[in-house]
Amino acid sequence: MEPVRFAMVGGGEGAFIGPVHRTAAAIAGNCRLVAGAFSSDAERARRSGEALGLAADRSYASWQALIEGEARKDAAERAEFIAIVTPNHLHAPIAIAALEAGLPVLTDKPLTDTIAAAEAFAAAAAQTGGLVGVTHTYAAYPMVRQARALVAGGALGAIRRVAVRYTQGWLARAEDAVGKQAEWRVDPARSGLAGAFGDIGTHAFNLVETIAGERMVRLSAELRAAVPGRTLDDDGAAMFHLAGGARGTLVASQVCAGDANGLAISIWCEEAGLHWEQENPNVLRVARRAGPEEIWTAGADRPYLAPQGSRVIRTPAGHPEGYLEAFANIYQDFALAVRGDAPADPCYASLSAGMRAMRFIAAAHASSEDDGRWIDLEDTRA
Amino acid sequence: MEPVRFAMVGGGEGAFIGPVHRTAAAIAGNCRLVAGAFSSDAERARRSGEALGLAADRSYASWQALIEGEARKDAAERAEFIAIVTPNHLHAPIAIAALEAGLPVLTDKPLTDTIAAAEAFAAAAAQTGGLVGVTHTYAAYPMVRQARALVAGGALGAIRRVAVRYTQGWLARAEDAVGKQAEWRVDPARSGLAGAFGDIGTHAFNLVETIAGERMVRLSAELRAAVPGRTLDDDGAAMFHLAGGARGTLVASQVCAGDANGLAISIWCEEAGLHWEQENPNVLRVARRAGPEEIWTAGADRPYLAPQGSRVIRTPAGHPEGYLEAFANIYQDFALAVRGDAPADPCYASLSAGMRAMRFIAAAHASSEDDGRWIDLEDTRA
Amino acid sequence: MEPVRFAMVGGGEGAFIGPVHRTAAAIAGNCRLVAGAFSSDAERARRSGEALGLAADRSYASWQALIEGEARKDAAERAEFIAIVTPNHLHAPIAIAALEAGLPVLTDKPLTDTIAAAEAFAAAAAQTGGLVGVTHTYAAYPMVRQARALVAGGALGAIRRVAVRYTQGWLARAEDAVGKQAEWRVDPARSGLAGAFGDIGTHAFNLVETIAGERMVRLSAELRAAVPGRTLDDDGAAMFHLAGGARGTLVASQVCAGDANGLAISIWCEEAGLHWEQENPNVLRVARRAGPEEIWTAGADRPYLAPQGSRVIRTPAGHPEGYLEAFANIYQDFALAVRGDAPADPCYASLSAGMRAMRFIAAAHASSEDDGRWIDLEDTRA
Amino acid sequence: MEPVRFAMVGGGEGAFIGPVHRTAAAIAGNCRLVAGAFSSDAERARRSGEALGLAADRSYASWQALIEGEARKDAAERAEFIAIVTPNHLHAPIAIAALEAGLPVLTDKPLTDTIAAAEAFAAAAAQTGGLVGVTHTYAAYPMVRQARALVAGGALGAIRRVAVRYTQGWLARAEDAVGKQAEWRVDPARSGLAGAFGDIGTHAFNLVETIAGERMVRLSAELRAAVPGRTLDDDGAAMFHLAGGARGTLVASQVCAGDANGLAISIWCEEAGLHWEQENPNVLRVARRAGPEEIWTAGADRPYLAPQGSRVIRTPAGHPEGYLEAFANIYQDFALAVRGDAPADPCYASLSAGMRAMRFIAAAHASSEDDGRWIDLEDTRA
Repeated sequence: MEPVRFAMVGGGEGAFIGPVHRTAAAIAGNCRLVAGAFSSDAERARRSGEALGLAADRSYASWQALIEGEARKDAAERAEFIAIVTPNHLHAPIAIAALEAGLPVLTDKPLTDTIAAAEAFAAAAAQTGGLVGVTHTYAAYPMVRQARALVAGGALGAIRRVAVRYTQGWLARAEDAVGKQAEWRVDPARSGLAGAFGDIGTHAFNLVETIAGERMVRLSAELRAAVPGRTLDDDGAAMFHLAGGARGTLVASQVCAGDANGLAISIWCEEAGLHWEQENPNVLRVARRAGPEEIWTAGADRPYLAPQGSRVIRTPAGHPEGYLEAFANIYQDFALAVRGDAPADPCYASLSAGMRAMRFIAAAHASSEDDGRWIDLEDTRA
Repeated sequence: MEPVRFAMVGGGEGAFIGPVHRTAAAIAGNCRLVAGAFSSDAERARRSGEALGLAADRSYASWQALIEGEARKDAAERAEFIAIVTPNHLHAPIAIAALEAGLPVLTDKPLTDTIAAAEAFAAAAAQTGGLVGVTHTYAAYPMVRQARALVAGGALGAIRRVAVRYTQGWLARAEDAVGKQAEWRVDPARSGLAGAFGDIGTHAFNLVETIAGERMVRLSAELRAAVPGRTLDDDGAAMFHLAGGARGTLVASQVCAGDANGLAISIWCEEAGLHWEQENPNVLRVARRAGPEEIWTAGADRPYLAPQGSRVIRTPAGHPEGYLEAFANIYQDFALAVRGDAPADPCYASLSAGMRAMRFIAAAHASSEDDGRWIDLEDTRA
Repeated sequence: MEPVRFAMVGGGEGAFIGPVHRTAAAIAGNCRLVAGAFSSDAERARRSGEALGLAADRSYASWQALIEGEARKDAAERAEFIAIVTPNHLHAPIAIAALEAGLPVLTDKPLTDTIAAAEAFAAAAAQTGGLVGVTHTYAAYPMVRQARALVAGGALGAIRRVAVRYTQGWLARAEDAVGKQAEWRVDPARSGLAGAFGDIGTHAFNLVETIAGERMVRLSAELRAAVPGRTLDDDGAAMFHLAGGARGTLVASQVCAGDANGLAISIWCEEAGLHWEQENPNVLRVARRAGPEEIWTAGADRPYLAPQGSRVIRTPAGHPEGYLEAFANIYQDFALAVRGDAPADPCYASLSAGMRAMRFIAAAHASSEDDGRWIDLEDTRA
Repeated sequence: MEPVRFAMVGGGEGAFIGPVHRTAAAIAGNCRLVAGAFSSDAERARRSGEALGLAADRSYASWQALIEGEARKDAAERAEFIAIVTPNHLHAPIAIAALEAGLPVLTDKPLTDTIAAAEAFAAAAAQTGGLVGVTHTYAAYPMVRQARALVAGGALGAIRRVAVRYTQGWLARAEDAVGKQAEWRVDPARSGLAGAFGDIGTHAFNLVETIAGERMVRLSAELRAAVPGRTLDDDGAAMFHLAGGARGTLVASQVCAGDANGLAISIWCEEAGLHWEQENPNVLRVARRAGPEEIWTAGADRPYLAPQGSRVIRTPAGHPEGYLEAFANIYQDFALAVRGDAPADPCYASLSAGMRAMRFIAAAHASSEDDGRWIDLEDTRA
C-alpha cells in the first residue's frame, strides 16, 4: 500500500523521543512524515522541518497552524494522522483539537498530565469517534506479544503473582536532573502526575495489563523523592491486585544507581512462570511447573511463536531486534488502523489503556499520601 | 585443632535438613557428630544413630535423655554444642534446656514457632550467657559476606532501595502439600507463624539485614493462602523501611510455579547496585553509577575480595561452591566460637538476628490482618 | 545533508537480504533508494519497484539497463551509489560495470564467487579509483567497534589467542536445503566458494580481523559436507595464526542443530579477554587478568565508550539495538564516504578486507583438500 | 554401610589437591581416611598426619612404608584403597606397588607422566586384576552425567560436532609460574607430558569422551609455550575426529588472561545441541532443532533427569552443588566399587579412560611437532 502520511507535533532539534518516533516510522515502512510543528519556538520549528526535508509549507510554527493547515490540503496529500511527542501537559489540548479536525491521534505516554485532561481527551474521542493510540513502547516487543498470547491461550492457568520493576539510575544524584530531558520530567507544572511513577511506572503498569490481559484493580503504594530537594517522586513501590485475584508488586525508580533501563517482569501462572527483561528483549523464559525451563526466542521463522508475536518480527531467529523495532511495531499497526486494516491485537495502547495508566498514577499518589491505604483504581476521578 | 564435638536433635531417617547439617559439619572439618536424638520415635532414633556410626550409648531416645546423658560424660568426651533440626515448635524447649545445661545451641530457623517462645528462648540465653547461633544459611555464602563488606565499607554510599524475593514453586498445587517436608510446614500447630513468610520470608529478611547492616524497622504486608484449602500463608509480599531510610519490597511465595529456590536480592546504594542470586551464588554483580558493571566472582585467590568473603572460600576462582559449603561456613564459625575463637563477623545468625526474624513474621501477619497498616517491628510483642 | 541517492540490484519479491538493506538505509536516515533492478525476471522486477514506490522509469529490467539509465539522469537526480544484493556470482560483473560507469559500489558479502572474479573486481576498483564497501554486517555492531578500539588502544597488550565460532542449525537436515535462501547457497554454480565457510565463515574471519586489527596469515582447515548428498561444505573448522603471532580456532557450521545465528568471539590479550556474542550484541565482556570482569554495554550516553563505538549508537544505554541498526551503520558510513565525508574508521568492510575474506575461503578449501596442511593466505591465487 | 577405609599418598601441608580429596571423601560420607604418607619430607608428613587426626602409626614417612605398613594391619582395620595425589611422575610407581600389594588405586590425573609409565601401570592392573580409578573430576558433575545419558539414549541422534575449551589465565605472565602449584606443572622432569595439554587438556579430552560415549580417534594439534622462557606448552588447540565421524575442536590454554577455570563444551547432535559450562555446573542447556531451548537444572527431585544424573545429586533443585560435590561423587562411587557394589556407570574415570587421555597428550605433542599432521591416537606407543 501507499505509505500513510502523518504529521508530528514536538520532537524538534535536541529532543530525544522525536527522532525515535521518526526512525520507528521509517522501519515500519508504511508511514511517511509529511508535516510537522516541531517546536514551540517558531525558528527552531522551521529549522527542524528543513533538516527533515519537509516542504516549507508543511513545517508549521505551531500545532494550531498545523491542524488548520493540513485540513486545507487535498485529501490525497494531507496528513492522515498526527503524532504528538510534546511534554505531557500539551497532549490533551493538541489531541482534542486534532480529533475535532478529524485527525487520528498517536500520542506519546503518559496520556496526559492530569486525570481531568485525560477525561476531556476521552470525551473528545468518544464524541468524534476518532482513532487514538498511545505509545507504551515496551508492550510492542514481539516477546511481550508472545507472553500475552500464552496467557490468553489459557494453558498456563490463572495468574497467581506478578513482579514488575522499572529501575533506572539516571536521576541518582541531585545534579542529574538537568538538561532538556530531565527538567520537564521533574517540573510538576509540565509533567503533572509524572515523576517516576508517571514517567516509567506507567510503562510497568501497561506491561502488566498487556501480558496479563486483565485489569489492575487495587493498589497500595509508597512514593517519595529520595533525592533531597525534588518535588516529584523519583522512587516508589506498590502492591496491587489484578481483577482475577492475582497479587503483584511494582517498583518504579529513577535513583537506582547502576541501572540503565531496567524494566523486567515475572508473571507466575498456575502451570508456569513467564519472565521477560527489556534489556534482553528477544528472550522469553517459560519456567514450567513440571519439566525444564524453556527459552523462547524471537524469530520470524520460529514455528512455535503465536501469530501475535511472529507477525511483528522482521528477521529470522538469531538476528536481534531492539527498541526501535518495537516502536516501529506501534507505527506499523497504527498506520494499518488508520487505513481501516487494524490487526486483531494491535501493538499500540488503546485510549482506555492509556486512561487506566493515568488512574494508576493517581491511585498511587492517593495511596501514598494516605499512608498506603488500598485504593481502587476505579475510584480515581478528576 | 581437635574437632568440636556436637550432638544433634532431629534429622533422622527421611529428614531433609538433618543430612544437610551433617554434611555441612563434615565439610567444615572442625566439628564431629558424637551424639544424637534423631527422632521422637525411639526405634527410628536408634536406627538413625546406628546408620550414622554413633556408639549405642550416644544415640538417645529423646532430646531430654540426650541433654541429661551428655552432661554425665567426661568433659573431654561430651558434646560441646547441640544442633537442633526439629520442627519449629520444639526449638525453644530444647534450646532452653540445653542452655540451662550449659550447652551452646545452634538451631535451625526460624528461631521458634511463636514470639512468646522466642522471648523465652532469649531470656534463657540472657540468663545463662550461653552461645546461640541460628542457621540462616543463605547469609553464609561468600558473596553475601562480600556484599555485606562492600556496604559496610561505605564507598557505595547510603542504601536507597532494596528488592528481595524468595519464590519457590513446590507448593503450587493443593496436592503438593504432602510428605514429611510439606506437612508440618502447612500445619499451624507445628509451624506456628511459619507458612511461606515464616519458612522462607525469614531467610529473605535475614539476607536483607545481613547485607544492609541495618535493621528493618517498618513494614506493610499482604499475606494469603493462594491455594484454596490452606490455613497458612503460601504467598505474600511486603513493602518495608530500613533504619537508615531506604525503602524495599519483599516477596515470599511457595506457589510460584517453575521456580525452584529463587532467592534473589538487589540493593541499590548511592554509587552502585549490588545484585545476587542464590541459584548462581558465586557471582556478585556490582553495577556502578558511572563505569561498567562488574562481575565479582568467588575464589580463595581473588585479591579484590574482602577477608569476610574470602576467608570462607575453600577453592580457587572458577571452582564453584554451593549450598552445602555455605552451610559448612556456619558450622565452621560456630565451632570456632564454641572454642572461644569466633571470627569478627561470623557466618551464623545471632540470637538477636533470629529474634528480629520472628518479629518480622509477626509484623507481617499483623499488617496483613489489618489491611496493610504499617507496623513497627519493635511493636511486636508476645 | 540531503540524503544520498542509491540504486539496488537484486532484493526483489521474496528475497531476504534486500529488505534488510532497505530497512538499514531507512534507519541510517542519510540514504534514499531512488532506483532498482530488483530481479532477473523483468515482470518481477517491475512489480518490486512499484511496491517500493519507485517511479516507473527508475525500476529497471536488468542491472545493465540500470547502470546505463542512471548514467543518463541529471547529476542532481541520479543514483550516487549502487547496492548489490544478488547471488554471489553476479557481484563482480555488476560491480565492475558500475565502477566503470563511475558509480561507487556497496556489495553484499562474500565479495565474489571466485578468487579470479575478486581479482578482476579489485583491478577495476584500482583502475577507476572507485569507492567500494562490503557488508560484513557483524563488524558494524557498536560493541564490536568498541572491542576493536580497545585492542587498538594497546592497554590490553598483545593478542594471545582467538576463538571464534559461527554456528547455525538451519541446514541440519538434508531436507532443509530448499527454498530461495538455501538453494543457491548450496549450489556451487551460483555460490562458488560459498558453502558454510563462504557464507558465514567469511563473517567470522572478518570479525576476527576487525577486532584484532591484524591479518590472519596462515591456517589449517578441515571442511566437509556433514549431511550426505551435499556438494558444498556445511561444516568445518580451522586453526589459524594472526600476523602478530596469536593463535586461533574458527568453527563455521550450518548443521549445528538448535543454534540460530551463533556468531561468538573471544579474544584473549595479555591483560584481558574480550568476549562478544552476536545474539546479545549490546554487551562486551572485558575479563581482566587482575580485577573483576566488566560488562560494557552499549549506549549513546556511556562515557566510557570510545568514539568509534558510541558514534554509531542511536539510543541511550538500556535501549537495545540490533541487527538492523548494525546494518544501518554500514549504510550510514558508506553514504558519508560517497559524499567525501567518510569517518576515520568506517563500519563497512573495505575492498581489501573483502578480498582477504576470499583468500580465507580459498585457503581453507586448499588446506582441507591437502589433509590440513598449513596454508599462507597470501599464497592463494586465482 | 561402614565407611570404606582409605590411605592417601601426597597432599600434605600446603598442597591444593590433597585437601580437596579429603573434603570430597567427607562429603561422600562412605569413606574414611585412616592412613597417609603426606609428603616426601618425613617431618612434614608427620605433622600433616597429626593435623588430620591420624594415629601416629598410620602416618607414614614414605609411600613404600605406607603400603608395607597397611599390609600388616588386620583386615578389619587396614586401608581398603589408596588415593594418590602426588606429582604426576610418582603416580605409576606408587600405583604399581599398591596394586601388587592388593590395594585398589584411586589416582589423580593425568594417569602418569609418560606413555611408558602408563603402559606399565596398565600392565600391573591387568596382571593383578586390581581396581583403578582416575579423578577426572569434571566428568563427575551431575549435569555431565545427564548429558552423557541423553546422548546414550539415542533420541538426539548422532553427534555432528564438538567444541570444547578449557581456558585458564593463572599462567598468563612469566612471573606467574611460581609457587608449589605452578612449579612442578611447568617442570618437564616432574610433569612429563603435562603442560597445559597434560594438566587441563586431558580433562577436556575426558569430558568429550564421557559425554559422547565414543572415542576420539584422530587429531591435528598445535601446542606452544606462549610465554617466552617456558619449556612446556601453556597454550594449544586441536581439531579431532570421534569414532562415529563427528568433528571437533579443543582448546587448552593457561595464558588466557581473565579466565579462571573455563571448561566449557558444546556437543551438537542431529536433533539438539548440548551446552555445559563448569563454572555454572548445575545447568545443562538442551537446544532443540525444532522447539525452544531447554534449561535442565540439577536437583535430586527433578523428575526429568536420568538416574545417572539424579543419583549423584544431594539436594533438591535450586540448592547449587559445586566442584567439591562433583569430586565427592568420585569418592562415593569408588568406595562402592571397592566394596563390590559399583554403580552401573560410575563417576570415576576407568584406567582405560585415563590411558586414552595419555595417548591424547602424546598424539597432540607428536602432531604439533610434525606441523599439524593428523595422528591416530591408537598409534601412540611408548
